[in-house]
Amino acid sequence: MLNCQTLLLTGLLAVAAVPSWVSADEGMWLFNDLPLKHLKTKYGFQPSDQWAEHLRLSAVRFNSGGSGSFVSSDGLVLTNHHVAADTLHKLSTPERNIIEDGFLARSIEEELAAPDLELNQLVAIEDVTQRVRSAVNDEMSADDAAQARRAVISTIEKESLDDTGLRSDVVTLYGGAEYHLYRYKKYTDVRLVWAPETKAAFFGGDADNFEYPRYNLDATLMRVYEDGKPAQLDNFLHWSETPVADGDLVFVAGNPGRTQRIFTVDALKYLRDQRLPYVLDYLRRKEIMLQQYSLEGAEQKRRARDELFGIQNARKAYTGMLAGLQDPATIASKRGREDRLLAAIGADESLQSKAAAWEEISRLQQEKAKLLGQTTGFQSRLYDLAETLVLLAAEDQKPNAQRLREYGDAGRESLLQGVLSEAPIYDDLERAKLADELSRFVEQRGADNLLVTQVLAGKSPRERAGDLVAATTLGDVKVRQALVDGGRAAVLASEDPLIGLALLLEPEYRKLRKRREELEEQERQAYAAITEAVAAVEGTDTYPDATFTLRLAFGTVSGYEENGETIHPWTVMSGAYEHARQHKGQEDFDLPESWMDAEDQVDGDTQLNFVCTADIIGGNSGSPVVNREGELVGLIFDGNIQSLTSDYLYSDVQGRAVSVAAVGIREALRSIYKAPELADALGR
Amino acid sequence: MLNCQTLLLTGLLAVAAVPSWVSADEGMWLFNDLPLKHLKTKYGFQPSDQWAEHLRLSAVRFNSGGSGSFVSSDGLVLTNHHVAADTLHKLSTPERNIIEDGFLARSIEEELAAPDLELNQLVAIEDVTQRVRSAVNDEMSADDAAQARRAVISTIEKESLDDTGLRSDVVTLYGGAEYHLYRYKKYTDVRLVWAPETKAAFFGGDADNFEYPRYNLDATLMRVYEDGKPAQLDNFLHWSETPVADGDLVFVAGNPGRTQRIFTVDALKYLRDQRLPYVLDYLRRKEIMLQQYSLEGAEQKRRARDELFGIQNARKAYTGMLAGLQDPATIASKRGREDRLLAAIGADESLQSKAAAWEEISRLQQEKAKLLGQTTGFQSRLYDLAETLVLLAAEDQKPNAQRLREYGDAGRESLLQGVLSEAPIYDDLERAKLADELSRFVEQRGADNLLVTQVLAGKSPRERAGDLVAATTLGDVKVRQALVDGGRAAVLASEDPLIGLALLLEPEYRKLRKRREELEEQERQAYAAITEAVAAVEGTDTYPDATFTLRLAFGTVSGYEENGETIHPWTVMSGAYEHARQHKGQEDFDLPESWMDAEDQVDGDTQLNFVCTADIIGGNSGSPVVNREGELVGLIFDGNIQSLTSDYLYSDVQGRAVSVAAVGIREALRSIYKAPELADALGR
Repeated sequence: MLNCQTLLLTGLLAVAAVPSWVSADEGMWLFNDLPLKHLKTKYGFQPSDQWAEHLRLSAVRFNSGGSGSFVSSDGLVLTNHHVAADTLHKLSTPERNIIEDGFLARSIEEELAAPDLELNQLVAIEDVTQRVRSAVNDEMSADDAAQARRAVISTIEKESLDDTGLRSDVVTLYGGAEYHLYRYKKYTDVRLVWAPETKAAFFGGDADNFEYPRYNLDATLMRVYEDGKPAQLDNFLHWSETPVADGDLVFVAGNPGRTQRIFTVDALKYLRDQRLPYVLDYLRRKEIMLQQYSLEGAEQKRRARDELFGIQNARKAYTGMLAGLQDPATIASKRGREDRLLAAIGADESLQSKAAAWEEISRLQQEKAKLLGQTTGFQSRLYDLAETLVLLAAEDQKPNAQRLREYGDAGRESLLQGVLSEAPIYDDLERAKLADELSRFVEQRGADNLLVTQVLAGKSPRERAGDLVAATTLGDVKVRQALVDGGRAAVLASEDPLIGLALLLEPEYRKLRKRREELEEQERQAYAAITEAVAAVEGTDTYPDATFTLRLAFGTVSGYEENGETIHPWTVMSGAYEHARQHKGQEDFDLPESWMDAEDQVDGDTQLNFVCTADIIGGNSGSPVVNREGELVGLIFDGNIQSLTSDYLYSDVQGRAVSVAAVGIREALRSIYKAPELADALGR
Repeated sequence: MLNCQTLLLTGLLAVAAVPSWVSADEGMWLFNDLPLKHLKTKYGFQPSDQWAEHLRLSAVRFNSGGSGSFVSSDGLVLTNHHVAADTLHKLSTPERNIIEDGFLARSIEEELAAPDLELNQLVAIEDVTQRVRSAVNDEMSADDAAQARRAVISTIEKESLDDTGLRSDVVTLYGGAEYHLYRYKKYTDVRLVWAPETKAAFFGGDADNFEYPRYNLDATLMRVYEDGKPAQLDNFLHWSETPVADGDLVFVAGNPGRTQRIFTVDALKYLRDQRLPYVLDYLRRKEIMLQQYSLEGAEQKRRARDELFGIQNARKAYTGMLAGLQDPATIASKRGREDRLLAAIGADESLQSKAAAWEEISRLQQEKAKLLGQTTGFQSRLYDLAETLVLLAAEDQKPNAQRLREYGDAGRESLLQGVLSEAPIYDDLERAKLADELSRFVEQRGADNLLVTQVLAGKSPRERAGDLVAATTLGDVKVRQALVDGGRAAVLASEDPLIGLALLLEPEYRKLRKRREELEEQERQAYAAITEAVAAVEGTDTYPDATFTLRLAFGTVSGYEENGETIHPWTVMSGAYEHARQHKGQEDFDLPESWMDAEDQVDGDTQLNFVCTADIIGGNSGSPVVNREGELVGLIFDGNIQSLTSDYLYSDVQGRAVSVAAVGIREALRSIYKAPELADALGR
């Protein structure tokens, strides 16, 4: 599943240009810099401005970590079940397990409001590179430059918000060679319309995840509201009645989270030998911890389910990434290109000074390695709230331009939506998570570390977690609201033990964050130099690394060869039944009752899933796939296992993006979920 | 489950005396140095020599990592289902899943021969301390001393084997203060008689493991054969008809694997801050890998099951051990005793020189930390075979006294039984395990390490593992036999790629092993000094740390308090049905059909499990529990979660050993498994 894993990879957001050696259907292109020449040359296709604008305005970003699209004039939004899972989970109760059992609103009144979801529609892009650059000069230290840049970015965002009322984010592109201001219309009243059962959406479970062929209905429909009524939309995607055919050119408009294609060989080696092994140890630890908690009972299993699935998904994705990097051929290929580049640079006097940037990146990896695992963040909802409240109160005392990025005025509304969410918090799950995090903290620093002894306060991690969760009142939204309203004074006066813990850790948090941001700034500068050198040698007709902002990818519907076998580019609905029969008795291979009951009514030949060569990555989950006419033909939900290297290396030999077919979704709504009106409303 | 986890903890076998501050029912006592005074004073019980000898000769050690006992004149052996699991697994096939579905031989002819099991009966103990000591003098370097000691031990073992035909092991006790020669009668023709279903034996699964109250029939019956016929035994345990009662004094005769009660505070900190976090990362990694493999299908699940359960069991045990060490109270208590000791030593001129040993232990922990994770052993059956064959051929060229410990003449028969076992090897499981091990090797040393590039031979870990497993012929016992027979010349001439790999790694293996043995020797010497100092301060009426050799523990049947609740010391059979109903729908909480069908016939009041305060640890699984009369009343199968610290700290406040009641086993055989003749044969 290709949702966004940015959480774990903060600090890996180095971005830069990829040059004209871009091959085949590679590329996550900016909507204000589309590969028109390439599309015309290779596919004879010339999208009009209108075509592109319509697609851009029909696409939405899920701030919880995914993509989606508008698919009706009255606000219907299509995304994946696994992108919606966070909301489905929060709407579930012990009595009504929406995430497992699915949901269908039979009328507008039955639609369920998501507790804390924000959707973004990208309405404008403005190049602000000059203004950002002019705030910085060569005499400044790296620290001062970073500070100045952050200040001007905050100011630009604040001005834009004040002028337009739109969410305004300055996005750093091409490793700092360009800065674009993105303005979003926000939708925060989002309601659930339809979700299938997990058994249909995640058919084949962890075993089939990242595999192909697939038979998954990984789709969910929501609806955006304005002023308490379904939003009336000018831009939405029409629903194609035609299944895709072999060789069809298709487009993906979505929000790829992060790629690192510009990474130097030394940066990839750091990933391979240090960062990814560390991240995988972390993920496996969380996976086992959540499995153990889930064993305590059916209700515990339900509570942990969404998070556990996310962890398993990430673990599988990172395992694939690491496997790719451990293949000597990968580094050899990257090394080959780097050698050619460095030779060209060495031969060109005007570029020779740039070679130092590669050395700088190499040095920075060693610095980053020292920070690996150093954290003060305890991954639990209650501690996250405490930390956010403590930082918010402190940051509010500073001028907007000097605050930590996410505490700026421009993002305040989005931040508060999370802090004040009514989503349920489960004490026993919090206890299990916090105990494990405290234990990990002891392991990282050693039990004799002063900060560790202060954090544990003489207790064992398990006891301390139990005490903290029992005594905190942060589970109550009113308490959080009062701390937001009361500011620093209220926070300092609070007797809540989790607030106390977050205050204790605040200096260490700031120290570590400062050090990471310094390294990021130095990395940004080095990659900017590398980008310039690459552009000089290889040309500029390219795309920047992914930044969880809207991009256009393209490719063709096509199968591939695997172990001497030809993998057909699509599957049909009867295949799902067949797949279930073949794996009878295996966990996660049962189709839900609704599917079994409807087997006779389903048109088995209807396309269900298909693959294409478009260049996607985590964050693209839920992206619409459209044809030349801009009609929706599919819904991205996964990449196959061969595509898991695409963080750093795109390949269309076997790597494929996996979609639910639009015709399959409509057929399921009609024949399985008995929702003909909803099916008819799609694309209208 | 308390089977032996020595595999993971080689290098942790430091052993030494625990002094007279030994409290309550603490202690794993030597059969040639029983706590007679203590038993008389506290319990008014005076076991006769005959009582002790009978118990010793009725106890058996499972060399696969557990304990057991003789329970009939015609060779019946009682142990745990989870100790037998290795054999049950090897006897299972896709068609007949003995480990899950259970087994009952209706006649002698139906009993199934275990492919590679060795049981040991301890027939004699001889103190050889003087002879070992006299081989070493003060002028020798640590290296020479270790070599000389190893040589004399090999010679003693070889002489004893030649003289008596018995398996002969010299056991290092009290950190090298004493050496005892143990002579065992070996039984290698062992057959399966009865095993219950996993659902009965491991009822409650991973969730209930190490918990209490429990309702598990974790029992299996085997039979030892001699000359193809059931062995006729003079010593076996009688089966008590009486359930245990509150306060009953009971005894446990079994083979605790390893304790580290003598560990200094710095040694415990090394465990807490470095070794255990490392081991837990390793275990979680293996757990996820085996889970992933198991998801591939029902047959894969069957193949991985035994190993996966072992890993999960170890992970849970180590999690508990680490949690105990992370509790500041644990170290504070250990620190308190150490401070008192050091103060007493400082005040006594004759002991002052011993204080340096604590510093030496501290230094050695840092040296051990450097070796953490450094290994050349790839945990897979095929690679293990290759490595063993390569080392065997090389060691055979040396005189017996100079060989690596396990390749000496005395152990040759046991070694070859493993190497030439007909137990099935599954290529796909081998591939998955070897790929993961190769990947781990890359992570440990970095992909640019020369040895790593040689091991991978230009392939990715997955590809390389696939190639190796596809090309090796070591799965064939005849090939292994030919390599054993052909010696070093055959090994060097072999074109088998796994033999080639093991040869490539042999120098590194030897280098690492040499370094580890040096550190062990230095640690042994330091702990010997500590032991002497402790004995001088606290007295000598004590027991040595566990060494996977036969010990006697004792305690009383008694409940405890937990969260303000009183936990009753035993459960009854009707409780199992009740427990299943309470957890209906939860994985691993279904009783098997045999139990459900027999609910009406079972006497629900029959005792099923009970707890006592006896001091046990991993390796004690399967140990007989006997009453004052030496009659079998129970079968150790677990410790509760509070006992998981007993590696380094015994406590009877809440820590308890958990047993299957003898009366419960007999009732189950009669009423559930419809095996009245077998039930009647027990103890006769």
